[in-house]
Amino acid sequence: MNETMKTILNHRSIRKFKDQPLAEQEIEQLVHAAQMASTSSYIQAYSIIGVENKQTKAELATLAGNQPYVEQNGHFFVFCADLYRHTVAAEMEDLEITPAIESTEKFMVAVIDASLAAQNAAVAAESLGLGICYIGGLRNEIEKVSELLQLPEYVIPLFGMAVGVPDAETDQKPRLPLENVYYKETYPNEKQKVQQGLENYNETISAYYHDRTDGKRSDRWTEQMSNMLKTPRRMHMKDFVQGKGFMKS
Amino acid sequence: MNETMKTILNHRSIRKFKDQPLAEQEIEQLVHAAQMASTSSYIQAYSIIGVENKQTKAELATLAGNQPYVEQNGHFFVFCADLYRHTVAAEMEDLEITPAIESTEKFMVAVIDASLAAQNAAVAAESLGLGICYIGGLRNEIEKVSELLQLPEYVIPLFGMAVGVPDAETDQKPRLPLENVYYKETYPNEKQKVQQGLENYNETISAYYHDRTDGKRSDRWTEQMSNMLKTPRRMHMKDFVQGKGFMKS
Repeated sequence: MNETMKTILNHRSIRKFKDQPLAEQEIEQLVHAAQMASTSSYIQAYSIIGVENKQTKAELATLAGNQPYVEQNGHFFVFCADLYRHTVAAEMEDLEITPAIESTEKFMVAVIDASLAAQNAAVAAESLGLGICYIGGLRNEIEKVSELLQLPEYVIPLFGMAVGVPDAETDQKPRLPLENVYYKETYPNEKQKVQQGLENYNETISAYYHDRTDGKRSDRWTEQMSNMLKTPRRMHMKDFVQGKGFMKS
Repeated sequence: MNETMKTILNHRSIRKFKDQPLAEQEIEQLVHAAQMASTSSYIQAYSIIGVENKQTKAELATLAGNQPYVEQNGHFFVFCADLYRHTVAAEMEDLEITPAIESTEKFMVAVIDASLAAQNAAVAAESLGLGICYIGGLRNEIEKVSELLQLPEYVIPLFGMAVGVPDAETDQKPRLPLENVYYKETYPNEKQKVQQGLENYNETISAYYHDRTDGKRSDRWTEQMSNMLKTPRRMHMKDFVQGKGFMKS
């Protein structure tokens, strides 16, 4: 197996880092890697904020729900969907682009662009021996995160990424069986098939938790997901996103 | 530089493939790589449809705006945001999750999850000597693509990915200067700074087109973007996405 496949298949989220800041050159390598991801029609609809300031990191950690690794890491990135740059471009060209950038389509383009870039940075970081953890918790208090980073209209923080030298071993959680994620030709038209797959997966997951907790836990995946989803969270999102100018039509 | 960094930095979209289908094992490697990407709270909110059927591929190529490489490639993947699986999980657990999965937050989670998975597959493919091209054009006729692939509620096709053995050299287009994508601590609060960056980038891009067209083209990036965005496209997206159950609140 080649080194890249090994890196990708060996991924695990790291939540404890050594107190060792990334070198400027490493940060640039990661951003460069991010930028080389595909981008929809060359639009490059994202920005990356790099946070080193200790106070800002501490505030972000609190806003993300007291996650210590948001504060303690080698570097903290915030990936943002960004169409603000394009409003400046349009002003330079004296053209009107508001209806386009306020569309749901272009919101999706920006979210996808930013995510592809982020995953390149993640793989690049891991190839350099660093660990990473995505921080969706920034969306808990997305308005405050946005203010803290001084994001203008048409820019929203999607997620953070803590990067650094790993200081703890982490397990790799088993993913859904391939046949329950990858479908040939069409989506399975029988709910029974999907359910059967989830029942099989539940057994795998229960055994996984059982093994690593000496029998104290045996969660099913369907149980974890349903318990998480029974309480809607971050219901401020639509207002926030639209307030920033996105997804109006 | 390590092999993974080389692979990532060497990316270019491939739009001409040899008539050589991917082996089943290669397809599985790519899906496996996709699955190892980070996923928000283990939600794994995506599915991947693999299309080999020639007629389906031909129809997708037409729907995507007559892009021949959607039909002619080694394999064609469609990456979908998927929360349908979670409705089955919730039924198994007898819990109600509709308000959560119909939220804008969970729509974003699914789009991000699917995109991270896709980019892992892209990097994995390139590490194996294959080429890839993302196909956002599937969203031109997203309703018809969705019907063709028999996607149920809470599943939408986000983009395709053509994969195969490259049959043409492609240039690598210069990305935005790093300092116009990566900001330290906060977003620049002066529009002038963003504009200056775009003016510098315009010079790079104009020179790039000039060089490779013997002086016939000298597009500015701001010109390309503004011309693309002055006509809103895919304005059916919001209705479609909401019709599938997403982003209702």
